[in-house]
Amino acid sequence: MLAAVLTVYVAPAAAGSGIPEVKAYLNGVDAPNIFSLRTLIVKVVGCIAAASSSLHVGKAGPLVHTGACIASILGQGGSRKYNMTCKWLRYFKNDRDRRDLVTCGSAAGIAAAFRAPVGGVLFALETVSSWWRSALLWRAFFTTAIVAVVLRALIDFCKSGKCGLFGTGGLIMFDVTADYVSYHLVDLPPVVTLGVFGGILGSLYNFLLDKVLRLYNFINEKGKTYKLLLAATVTVCTSCCLFGLPWIASCKPCPTDTQEACPSIGRSGNFKKFQCAMSEYNDLASLFFNTNDDTIRNLYSAGTDDEFQISSILVFFVASYFLGIFSYGLALPSGLFVPVILTGATYGRLVGMLIGSQSTLDHGLFAVLGSAALLGGSMRMTVSVCVIILELTNNLLMLPLVMLVLLISKVVADAFNANVYDLLVRLKGFPHLEGYAEPYMRQLSVSDVVTGPLLTFNGIEKVGHIVHVLKTTGHNGFPVVDEPPFSDSPTLYGLILRYHLLVLLRKKDFIRSCTASNLNASKHFSHDEFAKRGSGKHDCIEDIELCAEELEMFVDLHPFTNTSPYTVLETMSLAKALILFREVGLRHVLVLPKSSERAPVVGILTRHDFMPEHILGLHPSLFKSRWKKVRLGKLKVANIC
Amino acid sequence: MLAAVLTVYVAPAAAGSGIPEVKAYLNGVDAPNIFSLRTLIVKVVGCIAAASSSLHVGKAGPLVHTGACIASILGQGGSRKYNMTCKWLRYFKNDRDRRDLVTCGSAAGIAAAFRAPVGGVLFALETVSSWWRSALLWRAFFTTAIVAVVLRALIDFCKSGKCGLFGTGGLIMFDVTADYVSYHLVDLPPVVTLGVFGGILGSLYNFLLDKVLRLYNFINEKGKTYKLLLAATVTVCTSCCLFGLPWIASCKPCPTDTQEACPSIGRSGNFKKFQCAMSEYNDLASLFFNTNDDTIRNLYSAGTDDEFQISSILVFFVASYFLGIFSYGLALPSGLFVPVILTGATYGRLVGMLIGSQSTLDHGLFAVLGSAALLGGSMRMTVSVCVIILELTNNLLMLPLVMLVLLISKVVADAFNANVYDLLVRLKGFPHLEGYAEPYMRQLSVSDVVTGPLLTFNGIEKVGHIVHVLKTTGHNGFPVVDEPPFSDSPTLYGLILRYHLLVLLRKKDFIRSCTASNLNASKHFSHDEFAKRGSGKHDCIEDIELCAEELEMFVDLHPFTNTSPYTVLETMSLAKALILFREVGLRHVLVLPKSSERAPVVGILTRHDFMPEHILGLHPSLFKSRWKKVRLGKLKVANIC
Repeated sequence: MLAAVLTVYVAPAAAGSGIPEVKAYLNGVDAPNIFSLRTLIVKVVGCIAAASSSLHVGKAGPLVHTGACIASILGQGGSRKYNMTCKWLRYFKNDRDRRDLVTCGSAAGIAAAFRAPVGGVLFALETVSSWWRSALLWRAFFTTAIVAVVLRALIDFCKSGKCGLFGTGGLIMFDVTADYVSYHLVDLPPVVTLGVFGGILGSLYNFLLDKVLRLYNFINEKGKTYKLLLAATVTVCTSCCLFGLPWIASCKPCPTDTQEACPSIGRSGNFKKFQCAMSEYNDLASLFFNTNDDTIRNLYSAGTDDEFQISSILVFFVASYFLGIFSYGLALPSGLFVPVILTGATYGRLVGMLIGSQSTLDHGLFAVLGSAALLGGSMRMTVSVCVIILELTNNLLMLPLVMLVLLISKVVADAFNANVYDLLVRLKGFPHLEGYAEPYMRQLSVSDVVTGPLLTFNGIEKVGHIVHVLKTTGHNGFPVVDEPPFSDSPTLYGLILRYHLLVLLRKKDFIRSCTASNLNASKHFSHDEFAKRGSGKHDCIEDIELCAEELEMFVDLHPFTNTSPYTVLETMSLAKALILFREVGLRHVLVLPKSSERAPVVGILTRHDFMPEHILGLHPSLFKSRWKKVRLGKLKVANIC
Repeated sequence: MLAAVLTVYVAPAAAGSGIPEVKAYLNGVDAPNIFSLRTLIVKVVGCIAAASSSLHVGKAGPLVHTGACIASILGQGGSRKYNMTCKWLRYFKNDRDRRDLVTCGSAAGIAAAFRAPVGGVLFALETVSSWWRSALLWRAFFTTAIVAVVLRALIDFCKSGKCGLFGTGGLIMFDVTADYVSYHLVDLPPVVTLGVFGGILGSLYNFLLDKVLRLYNFINEKGKTYKLLLAATVTVCTSCCLFGLPWIASCKPCPTDTQEACPSIGRSGNFKKFQCAMSEYNDLASLFFNTNDDTIRNLYSAGTDDEFQISSILVFFVASYFLGIFSYGLALPSGLFVPVILTGATYGRLVGMLIGSQSTLDHGLFAVLGSAALLGGSMRMTVSVCVIILELTNNLLMLPLVMLVLLISKVVADAFNANVYDLLVRLKGFPHLEGYAEPYMRQLSVSDVVTGPLLTFNGIEKVGHIVHVLKTTGHNGFPVVDEPPFSDSPTLYGLILRYHLLVLLRKKDFIRSCTASNLNASKHFSHDEFAKRGSGKHDCIEDIELCAEELEMFVDLHPFTNTSPYTVLETMSLAKALILFREVGLRHVLVLPKSSERAPVVGILTRHDFMPEHILGLHPSLFKSRWKKVRLGKLKVANIC
């Protein structure tokens, strides 16, 4: 309840895992408030509250968001709102450096969540980021190395048990190296089966999650009370499952050869007493009443094939699968990673039990492979999941099996739907720009999608006109064109951003007549004034008040214009324009005319012009051919060259 | 000698490690014959011969080249020269798919060399490739997963010892997990020292290698005999070292508590007898007379602090350091990776011995960290080396230490010179395009570097003119411009490639008069004719014979022109043009004029226009400011936005 109240009333942007928001931000979409100090605090407190309430939510996603938040706040030089700024951080006030920082922050999040520094780098590379440079790889690696060293030092410090549960367990969370893993060719069929069904279950997970989130969105839109009620309902249901379901399971006698206390009545342990007699334990209660981490460790551990009943594992699998789906969309910080790992581990055990004596593999190994299969099926990550699982379990010998399972489950699941983060990004309505061109884009040229009247400014423009244009449109970039008095014919000078225009208007450094002014106008401004502000913080044209006299004056835009905008010809194939737009990471591309008789610039391409909704709205005939995608896919290879 | 003779007389492209060639190819530079079937065979045979001759060369680099070769040959549908073609492979006949295949092939090479599938993917990502897409990550992962599964199956099959040395050792090459690694804050100073000196030694290694290679190039240019003589000299010197140096070392009595035979007179083992008595061993001979892999394993193994004398380690370190440098540039397949790992391991042991009782860390652990330090200092890879070392040693607990050492050595070495592969690429004269813009490029616009008269073709062009232009220039792309009879004013139609022009000329499908022909001319050609040929195989204009009558005829270029070339305005900043060129992966960019009065296209930018030599040749005044780079670097952040 604390988590939900904080999220709903203080920072709604802290709901969910935050990975879709970070992914969208790194793709170039600034959602409001996702990286504010307030979001950060609510995320941390809310995540602790939600995870400790036994809700079936993870902490990895929120940790990624937390890392990204800290990175972004550092990048914008602290929080100006709360007067916590730092001068030497102001060098990062541009988009690229801030994006790099956020990437490193999200890598640090995964590194901290799973004590997996290399896995964190790969996660940031594979899932979160849209652009990647060699320098960034090395910076992210630096970040996670620091995370690893700090973690190692803290573990050293906490060995004596003064830090609660953190002290237990070393740098490897689920150390299952006890056994020498051996497997042979005959073990391949069960492993392949595991992968295939893992892929199906993973894509089904995504499908159901999508449906449930649509339902939740519908409920959540009705008001804050509904959000709280929804969270309360799911929490109560979860508690009912926790306390109700273990009654189904029959008691098992304690094993005699274990070193662990049985039954364990204290904090953690593999043998919970629940309703049983003193020398017995309830295996289902043992699964439900541990922390997620402990449950996963129990499921992963080798030599425990007889500890669980098949009925208990089945019940826990079904409960975990659906609780994970129903818990995610609530208005509180919640991750998807740990529930999927846990569900996958149960699934793996289940498969191991069903196969029974057909395979010599340990059920603990099946649990690890099950986690890999469900992660591959739901999140569709390959290298990063592989490395994270390696770093979690410290068992390099099963690497070939883990890779195989991941490959199979990803391929199977890709046949059904997109990965879960893409689904979430789409559901949130972020205009996420994919890295590849849809086949129908090859049939269009740039001029087919550029719409609306183009608004340009003169090199020396009347203030009133600028204010009028900024008030009546939402465009963020405007071409600057030099008209005849200042050049022989209309010539493109460059591109000016809305944000820079607002800075100019606020400064009120205007000139009285429409003549070429001193080009030193830029000296009146400091770099700092044009620096990129914190994400989601935008100035507004309505905030600037200008008197009638000022509106009649002029302003020289030349010194403030980007004179090197990227351009394409109007006959350029839309698919190739998308590659330019996406690979270089642009916000605006100017469209030039083919013939020299027309205006020097005929349009601006933005992110929205590449969205399928926009293109298919303009050219409904393509909608049909969209379904020919599969057939077209075959021709792709020939067309690309 | 066999390796040298094969390389010199059959396939000179097989010399060296091949990684620079693969790196240059993936950057867009097709060196001749690097991926031919002949190179592949010589590489494989030569690598076996060179490695087994006790020359101080590795096998990882040649394996990367081998993997890339196989990928490229598969990608071009087999070898046409030797009549080994395959129809269903022809879909890959375009640059992008072939480059993807080569990337996967090089990943497979590292995966096979070190039995490190994840490390292979990361190596391809970090060191070899210039462009990277998410789909490629997943394909490379697929490749190395197959490598891992096949390796695992072969190991299973070879358990009984029927495959020689391959059967010994499992999937983990240097399994040093025996000990529980424990380290504390007090161990940090020695580790940091190790990293710092590792960085210095690594950059010194690169510096010396560069000098020696320049000397070797000078000798090798004199003729094939000189090449062979050089190889023979170095081989003899290496043998002298091998058989001469162990005489320096004093004999040590065999340890009593070891399970290994001592002294071992058979194939491998840690205790070589050499000149000693029956119950003694020569530690220096043990280092010299094992395979590289066994020596590394002995150095890495824990609990062997007293096995080696400090004098022996020092002698072996110096010998290994310089033999590695002198062996690389010979005309035979040779890798750098394994010598650097071996030298690093010796260096680590040496540091461990010098520090002595100051640190509680095992000397085997020092050896692992020493390898990491020298790899970081020489190759400057971070994540990939980290993962490769993890996969080599299966000891996740030392991850934080390995990361720390890598970071420190890389940072230290970066202060001195570039990484070894960049040095090699530069030495070979490949026009490698870096991913970042030098500061002086920001001061230039595109029109400052475009040189030479621009050669354009009309939409319908006289055959004789095409032949003349192709014969007198080496350009690979020509703009196609429609002149007044076919359009109102000169209009840019697109870009045509030399290769496509040659196909047209060979087909001799000409028209008699200069009129718009039927646009179905492309129907006379099949896709296959325009498919990209194998790397390094170029058609030649001299091979095409045309009679005088044909030279007077015309050819309609419209159906064969790329109508969507990427373009920039002539006032575009050179740095931004480089970003476009590099990120999108282009070969030609058309330069458009700013004002509409001039010709519709004023130049073509190619890779060579971005080379520092070209730019600084045109603008020598920038040469001075080049040295202000460090100072400019500080301003970078402000300028980029």
